Amino acid sequence: MMQEIRFNAFTMNCIGHQSPGLWTHPRCRSTGFNTLAYWTDLARILEQGLFDGVFLADVLGVYDVYGGNADAALKAATQVPAGDPMLLIPVMAMVTRDLGFGVTSSLSYEPVFPFARRMSTLDHLTGGRVGWNIVTSYLDSAARASGQTRQRAHDDRYDVAEDYMQAILALWERSWEDGAVLADRARAIYADPSRVHRIQHHGPHVQLDAVHLQEPSPQRTPVLYQAGSSPRGREFAARYAECVFVSGPTAAIVGARAQAIRALATAAGRDAAAIRCFSLATVIVAETDAEARGLLEEYRGHVSHEGALALMSGWTGVDLSSLPPDQAIRHVENDAGRSALDNITRADPDRSWTVRDVAEHVGIGGIGPVFTGSAVSVADRLEAWVAESGIEGFNLCSVVAHETFEAVGRLLVPELQRRGRFKRAYRPGTLREKLGGTARTRR
Amino acid sequence: MMQEIRFNAFTMNCIGHQSPGLWTHPRCRSTGFNTLAYWTDLARILEQGLFDGVFLADVLGVYDVYGGNADAALKAATQVPAGDPMLLIPVMAMVTRDLGFGVTSSLSYEPVFPFARRMSTLDHLTGGRVGWNIVTSYLDSAARASGQTRQRAHDDRYDVAEDYMQAILALWERSWEDGAVLADRARAIYADPSRVHRIQHHGPHVQLDAVHLQEPSPQRTPVLYQAGSSPRGREFAARYAECVFVSGPTAAIVGARAQAIRALATAAGRDAAAIRCFSLATVIVAETDAEARGLLEEYRGHVSHEGALALMSGWTGVDLSSLPPDQAIRHVENDAGRSALDNITRADPDRSWTVRDVAEHVGIGGIGPVFTGSAVSVADRLEAWVAESGIEGFNLCSVVAHETFEAVGRLLVPELQRRGRFKRAYRPGTLREKLGGTARTRR
Repeated sequence: MMQEIRFNAFTMNCIGHQSPGLWTHPRCRSTGFNTLAYWTDLARILEQGLFDGVFLADVLGVYDVYGGNADAALKAATQVPAGDPMLLIPVMAMVTRDLGFGVTSSLSYEPVFPFARRMSTLDHLTGGRVGWNIVTSYLDSAARASGQTRQRAHDDRYDVAEDYMQAILALWERSWEDGAVLADRARAIYADPSRVHRIQHHGPHVQLDAVHLQEPSPQRTPVLYQAGSSPRGREFAARYAECVFVSGPTAAIVGARAQAIRALATAAGRDAAAIRCFSLATVIVAETDAEARGLLEEYRGHVSHEGALALMSGWTGVDLSSLPPDQAIRHVENDAGRSALDNITRADPDRSWTVRDVAEHVGIGGIGPVFTGSAVSVADRLEAWVAESGIEGFNLCSVVAHETFEAVGRLLVPELQRRGRFKRAYRPGTLREKLGGTARTRR
Repeated sequence: MMQEIRFNAFTMNCIGHQSPGLWTHPRCRSTGFNTLAYWTDLARILEQGLFDGVFLADVLGVYDVYGGNADAALKAATQVPAGDPMLLIPVMAMVTRDLGFGVTSSLSYEPVFPFARRMSTLDHLTGGRVGWNIVTSYLDSAARASGQTRQRAHDDRYDVAEDYMQAILALWERSWEDGAVLADRARAIYADPSRVHRIQHHGPHVQLDAVHLQEPSPQRTPVLYQAGSSPRGREFAARYAECVFVSGPTAAIVGARAQAIRALATAAGRDAAAIRCFSLATVIVAETDAEARGLLEEYRGHVSHEGALALMSGWTGVDLSSLPPDQAIRHVENDAGRSALDNITRADPDRSWTVRDVAEHVGIGGIGPVFTGSAVSVADRLEAWVAESGIEGFNLCSVVAHETFEAVGRLLVPELQRRGRFKRAYRPGTLREKLGGTARTRR
């Protein structure tokens, strides 16, 4: 097979994840996010479409930079209300056999010991199909929800992250040796205590002295995902991540970012080719180009500009409600904000991007590119994108639940299969093995 | 109907919860605790038996007082390995319609903001069938796992608990008004921001300033369970608990404890009759008395004395490995330990209880009484127990998974139904309504 193209479904336990306002579309089911059937239906659709996994974003705060409050986010149901992502995974695992499950958890707000147990439990219950998107959070509102006045400085968050990783990897990898579980009924010995070890970690930010509560799960350490775009974030990704989200407006930019992380990984002594890079994108595919364009127009009529700007204000830290809609946005002070804005405007750097333009762009699929057309047209564009960037696949956003992902599986995947670009069946084994970066079950 | 008798199934996401060693019984399935089918099978069995709920215990540490290490607990699989309990609930909800789900979470180790969201998410996904067993933890090993050198003093833990309750109840009850969710597609307004409020809580132990991330779930606040036996614990239960676990070796002792909590609840201005008191017990029921006695004997052959003493040492804080098996245990210094020991020895206060006796007692069903016999015999004893104590039901332990609970549903429940002592169908509504202490959906 030629280089395979991989799909993740990028979603969140909420109504409006990346396409603010689209919940008002008559076919959109996302207001059913608090029901089990919403998620089991999604899981079945994704497995039928041979998606590698469903990827659950999360934030532990509200988008309240826009207008200085959460009003716009609440009206547009933009990432609020939002539920816990982990609780969805067991039911999705129940109705599938191969689909993977990535979950975002912020190590800024999850105490390491119970979190390590939660992930091990998920890895057990899913038979080794779990991944963890390591984030350090970016919303001040999340810090205030935890009783802090504001979040830690960006680089400090990565210092905590390093410490946290050492502790959690020790719990997963070194507390229970292989062979510690005997489950010997005749001798009445479940575990051999000489092979179970207390982990004593006394770092600057994380301390623990404990036996990991779970016996080793199929993968021990879940597949590690990361999305760092800052220098510290890229360094961190290069050291730990097995899958990296490298978003950007053009294949050239994404390719350069992926290459930078691979170079850092090589420098850190890792096999850079084993890292799977996924680029954020939205696919609107239909029987014909015209029909797909029609769908896109129909969807655009449901975008909430306010919801989009609430997201963008949260990402950039700039209150965009203070600017008139037709004012051009030229400059954003902070790093994260510049990166989010760049991801939009560098698609067309000569254009003067106004607040309204940005809202319209974010309205469908957030800061990623949108590929609209027939299966043939979209497949052409994805092939070209992969060829130019050297990435392994796409983290696809939903526009209308579950219509967007259903169409990808029904129309686009068969076209990519015909081209020898998409698997015809899942690989056996754990999520780590299915992703194909390594033959190992474990990290 | 005469006063109804209610059953909860008391279990834990582990191999050996209350009957250490019984996992070695050839029919016991508990080593399958890390699979989804183990829990969905259990849920179906319990709903068929019209149990009110499945109650999941939890500890965030290991039993390492016995011998000064976790060896005995590991060998006997006594509450280690153990998985996260919450992750089991969605799948059990998926295969049932009425069964309730109580989950133990320690407010000593769960940051309030994400925990509040988790419980709201569970209440949504289960359609309002969730309860929370509020605990403050009792194992030093759990404190060390969180980077503390030892746990807080008992009364300090209850100071934290009070503060925590104020914060979490504010998130559940006051952040989103009724009617805040409009879900108005035509006007593109999901939530009315004027009806969603930031909760600002600045207590001595818990601080937060945040909008609750979830919209109101069917019950808002899950049904609150508590098991406090100390003076501070009883006070706390009297203020908050809708269901109370009142364990004890005799109906008279349990009755006095339940009465004490009801009196405190009345003094706190609550309707004491609305509180549901459940007593820990184990039922071994079979077609005949002789067959049941045979089963008990068979089970006893699988008890792990070491596992039982590991539990008892953890509960009492006394390393029982340092005493010879035939030494009488007369006195335990600390309050919690005395209470655990009392629950065994006061069943027969004139007897000289040795270490071995205690291990044998704990081996089947922990510190609770064991009712063994035909359905008629056990029903007689439960009726007498309820009449004498005035409690509403029993928190039943598993001996052999899932044989113990299956037999209760198949043999004992029909006998109690014939006597007009057990419901023939679930009540409609949320768990709170099904429990019958109140007609309200919400607290």
